[in-house]
Amino acid sequence: MSDLPPLTVAGRLDRVRACFARAEIDSLVVTDLHNIRWATGFTGSFGLLVVGEHHSTLFTDSRYAEQAPAQLAAAGADADVVITAAIVAEGAKGLARVDRAGLEADRISWADQQRWSEAINATLVATQALITELRSVKDDAELARMQRAAAIVDETLAEATPMLRVGTTERDLARFLEDGMRARGASGPAYETICASGPNAARPHARPSERAFIDGDMVVIDAGAMVDAYRSDMTRTFVIGAPSETAVEIHEIATAAQAAGVAAVRAGVEAGEIDRICRSIITDAGYGPQFGHGTGHGVGLDIHELPSVRSGNTAILQPGQVITVEPGIYLPGVGGVRVEDMVVVTDDGCRSLTRYPKEPLCPPSPPTI
Amino acid sequence: MSDLPPLTVAGRLDRVRACFARAEIDSLVVTDLHNIRWATGFTGSFGLLVVGEHHSTLFTDSRYAEQAPAQLAAAGADADVVITAAIVAEGAKGLARVDRAGLEADRISWADQQRWSEAINATLVATQALITELRSVKDDAELARMQRAAAIVDETLAEATPMLRVGTTERDLARFLEDGMRARGASGPAYETICASGPNAARPHARPSERAFIDGDMVVIDAGAMVDAYRSDMTRTFVIGAPSETAVEIHEIATAAQAAGVAAVRAGVEAGEIDRICRSIITDAGYGPQFGHGTGHGVGLDIHELPSVRSGNTAILQPGQVITVEPGIYLPGVGGVRVEDMVVVTDDGCRSLTRYPKEPLCPPSPPTI
Repeated sequence: MSDLPPLTVAGRLDRVRACFARAEIDSLVVTDLHNIRWATGFTGSFGLLVVGEHHSTLFTDSRYAEQAPAQLAAAGADADVVITAAIVAEGAKGLARVDRAGLEADRISWADQQRWSEAINATLVATQALITELRSVKDDAELARMQRAAAIVDETLAEATPMLRVGTTERDLARFLEDGMRARGASGPAYETICASGPNAARPHARPSERAFIDGDMVVIDAGAMVDAYRSDMTRTFVIGAPSETAVEIHEIATAAQAAGVAAVRAGVEAGEIDRICRSIITDAGYGPQFGHGTGHGVGLDIHELPSVRSGNTAILQPGQVITVEPGIYLPGVGGVRVEDMVVVTDDGCRSLTRYPKEPLCPPSPPTI
Repeated sequence: MSDLPPLTVAGRLDRVRACFARAEIDSLVVTDLHNIRWATGFTGSFGLLVVGEHHSTLFTDSRYAEQAPAQLAAAGADADVVITAAIVAEGAKGLARVDRAGLEADRISWADQQRWSEAINATLVATQALITELRSVKDDAELARMQRAAAIVDETLAEATPMLRVGTTERDLARFLEDGMRARGASGPAYETICASGPNAARPHARPSERAFIDGDMVVIDAGAMVDAYRSDMTRTFVIGAPSETAVEIHEIATAAQAAGVAAVRAGVEAGEIDRICRSIITDAGYGPQFGHGTGHGVGLDIHELPSVRSGNTAILQPGQVITVEPGIYLPGVGGVRVEDMVVVTDDGCRSLTRYPKEPLCPPSPPTI
């Protein structure tokens, strides 16, 4: 991955501080490891970041005595490192003169909040979505990794096409895809790959089973890769052999809804508007109740992050945000379809990072061996 | 995996209730998904279990409308299922007449604790390690899965031995091991496989890199598999080519320390005593400061669970608990060694689930191709 532009975090801690006034805090205790990674470049599995009004400190343990300072320096983070076996106690010392300390309320356990409450005198303020909101806008180095992750899945899925035949099991195909991602340089899948066939395709979160494909099956493949901890997300639906009229119909509707949703993505639009557009097309076609989940979500260091592309979300899309658009139609006992791309929001529209074609629904039969 | 005895949860909810008096609660809100799985058999990714004095209810959403009741029935769980989009609001209704509701303080976010605080009138009590302590003792069906997971890694590591040669990269070997686990029926690795070579072997949590093995490298392989969500954990250390005197010495010391620790495992012994025994052998040999982590931990649905096998832990080992014994010696810039087995505590000793041999340190050179 050495051909990718280096990840830098310069300026991010200042952008965190710029949120302090609105959040009514004068210091922020960051416990979410992806938030710490985003703000400092530190990739360890144990640490705590205290962002003060003037300087910031990362607390971690002796396992990371070499790694932590090296990663912060390489990423351009303006923060000190303290190596300690007692991160809360040490972190608390730096907050002795703070009035209102923010804690990431949805990323810290109640037990840890109680520990902080005992350790410092400051008022604890529950912050929500402070760094995660900043994280939703990606810079070029982040986008390069997500583009690479998406391209790896495009290529791997192309290689897997001959497996879309009678007899292949869901698990065989999922394993092939995950192996293929790794062989192309991904650190692994971005989430557990979904290969849902026949009646299983009616369940949006089905896990790969030993079920073998039979003629006429719809097969929903939902796959993403991870490159430098950044993730991709894409779904395509295929049919094994000859498709039923129903399969053709719901695939056409979902594809049209997805295309309309993607066409509406642009900086300045409300996230909920994308959901409304996709949903209205599916509802008008008579399948509204069969589309039971939100239209999409942000992607980055987490597979589900801000913004949520769901009904009623008034958050305004911003340039550089990466979202999925993934309407589906699910017919219990019969099958289902979902079509998903991951796109970058731009000033005048969006750019899709996932590029695998959505047609043909039935891949050409491979030669019988 | 159909040859494994079925997992049942019968009686577990009553064992949870039996802890109520000591915890001073009359109801428990279970948010940890592994705790929910253990208590009910439900494997979904979203849910909430309320254990009352007389009956229990699992709340989950429409994705699991079929799966949840089926899994609870199959596992023999005495609990109802409520399908809802608002699990906190629905769960709160059932707690209207409760005085003291336990929340799993280290498994619930502060934000969610605040939601519960607003939703119910009962006093919220922070419980710690209530179900996780029960979970630490495994029944035969659980042990069968952990034994299978351990055997899968034993076999896969044996198959990988020819790769212990100059030129293999850490990542190649890690990928081979993880693929081999899946090919043998594991759902995946139990954690990210560690293959740490040369100076990387001095870092206990090194991640596989593109570093290729060179002559004289110590290589620490820490690998586990997952079968039906139950995990295994094992570490072996090898040397590529001819070992240095240092490598031979620290491997002998760590192996002796590990054997002494395993020999001391028995129901009725304090967990901390196992750490003391391993550590004293390494310290007496002059490498105390180079053994910077705890001796082991419980394993099960989580890779790190109770009991913690660390200095000062006075918890008494119980029959059916599964723990690791994994002392190591790490020489920064040079290399390192760790030797680990996963054992079941019995009344008169223990039984190792991991069985790969610890010798020879240098596997026979494979023929040059």
